[in-house]
Parts: sequence; C-alpha cells; structure tokens
Amino acid sequence: MYFSKSFIPILKNNPTEAKIKSHQLMLRTGMIKQSSAGIYSWLPMGFKVMKKIEQIVREEQNRVGVQEILMPTIQSSEIWKESGRYDDYGEEMLRIKDRQNREMLYGPTNEELITEIFRSSVKSYKSLPQLLYHIQWKFRDELRPRFGIMRCREFYMKDAYSFDISDDEAFYSYNKFFLAYLNTFKRMNLSAIPMAADTGPIGGNLSHEFIILADTGESKIYTDKRIFDVDSSKTTIDKNSLNKLRGDFEKYYSVTDEKFKKDDFEKNVLKENRLQTKGIEVGHIFYFGDKYSKPMNASVDYNGKKEFVKMGSYGIGVSRLVGAIIEAKYDDKNEVMKWPTSVSPYDCAIIPNINKNDKTNLERAVNISKTLIKNNFEVLIDDTEENLSSKIKKFNLLGIPYQIIIGKSFSEQKIEFKEIHKDTIFISIEEIIKILKNKK
Amino acid sequence: MYFSKSFIPILKNNPTEAKIKSHQLMLRTGMIKQSSAGIYSWLPMGFKVMKKIEQIVREEQNRVGVQEILMPTIQSSEIWKESGRYDDYGEEMLRIKDRQNREMLYGPTNEELITEIFRSSVKSYKSLPQLLYHIQWKFRDELRPRFGIMRCREFYMKDAYSFDISDDEAFYSYNKFFLAYLNTFKRMNLSAIPMAADTGPIGGNLSHEFIILADTGESKIYTDKRIFDVDSSKTTIDKNSLNKLRGDFEKYYSVTDEKFKKDDFEKNVLKENRLQTKGIEVGHIFYFGDKYSKPMNASVDYNGKKEFVKMGSYGIGVSRLVGAIIEAKYDDKNEVMKWPTSVSPYDCAIIPNINKNDKTNLERAVNISKTLIKNNFEVLIDDTEENLSSKIKKFNLLGIPYQIIIGKSFSEQKIEFKEIHKDTIFISIEEIIKILKNKK
Repeated sequence: MYFSKSFIPILKNNPTEAKIKSHQLMLRTGMIKQSSAGIYSWLPMGFKVMKKIEQIVREEQNRVGVQEILMPTIQSSEIWKESGRYDDYGEEMLRIKDRQNREMLYGPTNEELITEIFRSSVKSYKSLPQLLYHIQWKFRDELRPRFGIMRCREFYMKDAYSFDISDDEAFYSYNKFFLAYLNTFKRMNLSAIPMAADTGPIGGNLSHEFIILADTGESKIYTDKRIFDVDSSKTTIDKNSLNKLRGDFEKYYSVTDEKFKKDDFEKNVLKENRLQTKGIEVGHIFYFGDKYSKPMNASVDYNGKKEFVKMGSYGIGVSRLVGAIIEAKYDDKNEVMKWPTSVSPYDCAIIPNINKNDKTNLERAVNISKTLIKNNFEVLIDDTEENLSSKIKKFNLLGIPYQIIIGKSFSEQKIEFKEIHKDTIFISIEEIIKILKNKK
Repeated sequence: MYFSKSFIPILKNNPTEAKIKSHQLMLRTGMIKQSSAGIYSWLPMGFKVMKKIEQIVREEQNRVGVQEILMPTIQSSEIWKESGRYDDYGEEMLRIKDRQNREMLYGPTNEELITEIFRSSVKSYKSLPQLLYHIQWKFRDELRPRFGIMRCREFYMKDAYSFDISDDEAFYSYNKFFLAYLNTFKRMNLSAIPMAADTGPIGGNLSHEFIILADTGESKIYTDKRIFDVDSSKTTIDKNSLNKLRGDFEKYYSVTDEKFKKDDFEKNVLKENRLQTKGIEVGHIFYFGDKYSKPMNASVDYNGKKEFVKMGSYGIGVSRLVGAIIEAKYDDKNEVMKWPTSVSPYDCAIIPNINKNDKTNLERAVNISKTLIKNNFEVLIDDTEENLSSKIKKFNLLGIPYQIIIGKSFSEQKIEFKEIHKDTIFISIEEIIKILKNKK
C-alpha cells in the first residue's frame, strides 16, 4: 500500500482534547475519528489493529472449545425485566422506543439474551456444557465519556457465556476461560495478571480481572512480584491441570484498590516482593451460578429432575485493547510507538528518500515491497515527497515495528533496516525476510 | 466438530410463522433465532455462513482498491440535518435520545457520516480518488418486518463510498464497484445481473441493482436472456475495459417492474430472448454527484478553486445474502439444500451409523475426520445415535455439499461419498480429498 493512497489523516501536533497517550496517538496517527461524544469511527490504521486483536481473541476462544455466535445490538426490554436488571441498570443503559412504542435497548451486555437463547434450545443436561461467545458492539451511555476509546460509549467486546450442570463443572468452564485469557494477552505481547475482583452489576461471588501494567492505568494494583513468573505454557485443557494453574496464581497476593487491604498486603507479601503500581483492565471473568437461570427459568432435565443451569460470563474489551496496548507500549516522551508484531497494522514500513525529479529510490522501494508481498508480508511504502527525517518521525509514531530506509547510500546487499528501539543494521533482503518470518 | 457438542438446535417441522423457504430453513436448521420482531441472533450454523460471505465481500472490495474502515452504529442527528435527510427519512429511522437528551439515531445508511469524515480529513484533489467501505450493522425500523432476515430490522451490510474530482473519474470508481459486485456474487455461485434502477431515498440519477434469479423473489424482472452470457472474466481495472464491460451489459434490456415498460420490452427484445421472472436484490450501487457534498460542504482544493467532490455509494446486504442464497439453492419440495462450497458452514459431513453398543463406525468417522482436518477441511461428524435415514434427512437440510456415509458395508478403499444432488460413489479417502480440494 502507498501512503499517499491510503486514508491515514495524520495530525501535526497532539490534539489538545486528548488527555492520555493512547487517545493522543490514535487521533494523531489517524487511527480513529470522533463522530460524537464517546463514539468513534475506526479509520484504516486503527481498524487493522482492532481486526488483528479480534482475530487473536477469536482463535483463543475457539481453541478452548467455545463456539461463536452473534447476538444483535438491539434487545427487547422484556428479558431484562425477567432478570430484574431493567431498573437496576440506570442511565448507563441506552433505552429506545421503536415506532410501535415498544421498549427496546442497546445491549450493554448479554447475560439475559444468551439465557433466553439457551433456555429455548437446550433441554437436557446431556447437551452440557455449552460455551458460547460473540464479538459485537455494545453501548454504555457513560455520563462523561473520555480518554478516547478507553472510556467511550459504543465499544467492541467479546463476551462469552458458560452453562453447566454443577458448580464443579462450571469451575472447569471458568478455568478454560482463565487459560484462554492468559494465552490471548500473551499473543499480544502483554503481561496480563489475573486478580481477584468484585463482581459489580454482573453479580456472583467468583471473579477475576485481567490487568496489564501501565503507568497511566486507571486502577491501582498491589501484587506479589513473583506472580509474573507463573508459567501457563504447560497447562492442558483438563480439570487438574487447569485447577493447578489457577492455584499457582492464587498463591500470590494480587488485588486492585477495590479489594486492597494494607494489613493483608504486608502480612502476605515480603517487602522485597511487594509491587504497587497501576494497571488497565483488559478482561473480566465472572461465575454467578443461577443468578440469571433461576429468575429466567433456564433449566435442564437431569434424570427426571429440573436443575437450573450454572452460568458464568467472560468479557474482553476488543476495542479497548487497542488503547491499552498503546498505553503499555508507547514512549510518549520520545514519541516512539512499537506495535507488537501480532497486531501491527503492517508488517514492515518502507521509507524511501524521494526527490522531486528522481524516482530511483521509490522504484527501489517498490521492488523491495514486491519481494516482501510475495512472502506474504503487508507493507506500507511512504511514497510522499516529505523529507526523510520527518518521514521517520511520522513512522515512529505509526509504530510499524520494522522500517526499511532507502537513502543516498542504498546498496542491495546492505539495506538499511531498523527494528524500533534497536540499532540500525545493514543486511540483504533475504536476511530481512528471515527476521520478519521469525518474529511473526 | 461433533454434532452433539455443537449448538445446532434443529426443529422437527417447519415453523408455522415462516412464510418463505429461507426463513423456514434457517429456523428449522437452527441457523438463527428471533430475539424480537425483525431482530435475530445468529447461531453457529448461520454465523459461519454469514462470516464466509462477509469475507468474500471484503476480498473483492480490497481487490479493486477500496479501503476498509468501520463507522459506529449510533450517529448524531446533526449531520442528517445538514444533508436534509433527517426529516425525510420518516419512521424507518430508529431515533434515540441519550441521557443528555441529545438526538441520536441508529444508522440506516452512512452517506452523511462518511461525508463528515471525508471533509475533515481530505483537503486536496491530489488525495483523490478515495474509496472507503465498512461492514457494519444497520437498523431500519420496518413497519412490518417479515420473511426472517430477508426483511428484518437489524441487518448486516457492506456499504462503500467513493469520492472523486469529476464525473468522469467518478464513473471510473462506479465501474470498479460494478466489476467487484459481479465477481463477489460469482464466487458465491450466484448469477447476479445488473439492472438499471431507481435511486429512491439515496438520490442521484445513475444506479444499478444486482438481482439474482429466484422463483420466490420479491421483484418481477424483465430481461433479454442473452445478458447471462456477458463475460466479465477478462475485464481489468482500467477505464476502457470497465467501460466496455458496463456497455456489454447495458446493450441488453433488463429492468425490474419499477422501470418496466411493456412497449420498450417488446420493441427491444426478440420474442425468443424475452425472460420474465422473479429475482432478489442482493446489491445496489448509486452515483449521485454532489447531492451530499454540496449541502455538507465537502470540497477539495483544485488548483486554487474549491470543488465539491462527486460521490457514489455501493451496498451489499451481507446478512440478506444468506437468505438469498437459500432462496436460490434450496429445493423445498424434496427438502434438500446445497450450499455453494465457498460459503458452506462445513466442507464435509461425516455421517456414521451408530448402534448403542458398537462404536466402530464412530471411530471410523473420527479417523477419516482427522485426515480431512489435516488437509485443512472443516468437518462436522454426526456422533448421535439417531437412525441413519433420519440423520441423512437432517444433513440434506443442513446443506453441507459433501457427505461421507459410514454404514454396515464400510470399506476403507470404497468409502461411500455423496455430493448433494449427485449419485453416491465409492472411493478412497485420497480421492475424496482430491474432489474437496478441486471444488474449494
């Protein structure tokens, strides 16, 4: 793709309305554009990142046996009245009357609707467990939307739901998601730690938040450093292995300020292991038993007896992760972003120095891009006539992790190649391909 | 995937509320579930088909150089007041007040919002053309939603928009979409014909509908049969080649009842070439010049002069295509569906005859599935204990185009293999793989 043909409306300076670095960078590099308060359009650079995140989330859900469906954005109020949450939810719920004057709403979450689908389709415990997810737009009418897509009104979320016959089986489902979440964030090069959490308006008594560290995070966190060394790479999808994994994490004190108690922290964590910092919530899982199945009468036949199913729900903020990754990875002092290779909008940037009457470097760039494209890499060529230093400044913000720079002293055998945050090296195209393949 | 583990809530009989065959089949095979009037959830079988259609649509947009973005579902009323359509749109527009009492709406289409994005980002004619698309949920508050997802309220649509400096350039953009649409429908094994159409609430004076033939179609169509022989396979993306293609189609009389005039039909089409039948609209493209750019002040600098950009818009009903394909391909007399291989929820079904105390055939099925999965095919195994004839009846409805049947007389060298609508053959697994690869 040529930069001049792509729709990347770059801003010269940080927009004054943006208070945190993800919001600043996303506006500045044309990833998003606000359409109204807390509602954004995703332009090509932002869209590509979000789609790659979505695909990783999807693959890790599929891997632990969750099936994908898609529920609508607009729901009827009826099922929310059944669960008792219609009045509870307050003004954050966007309430709508249709032309027939029926009470509808834009779904802020989907416990009710999935329970309705389940109860009308599944009759016997033999069809359990059922694990279902969807990735769909949600709306929460925040009083003060701010921080760009980090605290917006219309947001893109993966929410999954589990249905089981007993607590024991339900914990097994819960732990599958626990593992899937660790793997999901790991693939985005984020170290997310699971923390015991309050359940809030979802309900229930077992819950973990997955938090990534970022100085600009909205939650204070208190944890035992050793939690970062817990290894999930050998965990398999069976009850014992998953139980052990959760146990390994739960050995270490790790909470957000909501649950923080100074005495507990100091009693349970040796001074040298105490870490007190800030983080961003990127996932949240809940177990709430029959909180919805009972009032909504979602039961199965269990050897002639009617049993209410035990449910959990499991969320990942897909659009929010775009911002969270920036908060974790963007060096705003030096104005340098580096996307994890798995979610970068392009695999490699090619930055030729182009003079008005000399297209030699552009042709070199095109030739190199053809070789990379043949090897299945996505490439962005800066074909504009800006000077080289301002091009590089721009690409440092765009954050594509690898740059090929084509200047005066170009040589086919020694191409100028730079991985962001590392030293420039001079290597052949074959060596570049080897590096890109290795990192992908 | 095992049938018993998958979420496919099959109904024994046709649901009485469904009047047309796509609606019947989709409810009966558990592809969708209504959540409220004209609003549906997509269960795994329906979701898989829709996602495959979406991906084909995406690839063909990308191929002609359209860039993907994503606009939100909820829009501000402001921009609709600028274009003058806020009042025009009537009760089909779902109007919403947020907690701050701002007038919002659920987008039924996106001409206004894309124009707003364009005008705030693009300043010079040198950045033209700009071709942008998104695939997003839309809402039209139909007075009488019916026919399942064919005339529903919340629907999934690809809409694209073009911005050009002149009519001539804009026609070039229009024709790129014309070609992309032909290729899109061809990949779904549909013969869609472009027909001159009215422009309705979108506006403008150049417009084509893409119609596929189906006895149950909502539009009457009148056409010269020879239009089916127009060949687009050699068309390339340049002005002359695309112009020729549109000309080749426009040589033949071809209209829906809206534009039908008996005299013209009889004057222009020889008796033996006249075809009068029914069809379903699956795509619609519009050219409307400065209809939106002028009132919304979307202009570019053209050598010091301010020029309003010339715009077109281009829609494909992604969710609607699921139903349209069923209308075109489902033999409801014999209760046999066959999905085009490019959009089938699975590549191959494996149907073993399983007796209560003998799992031999299930093991055979699992072994065959492993070989197919290794070759990148998606496989659905019916591991239930239903009798074989009712399994086959069920799979004929599910419409996976290839079936492997494992009965009493199973032989590794002569596996019973059936392509729907064709005769059963007995071949080896290697030959099966060859056939599946060929058709994919």
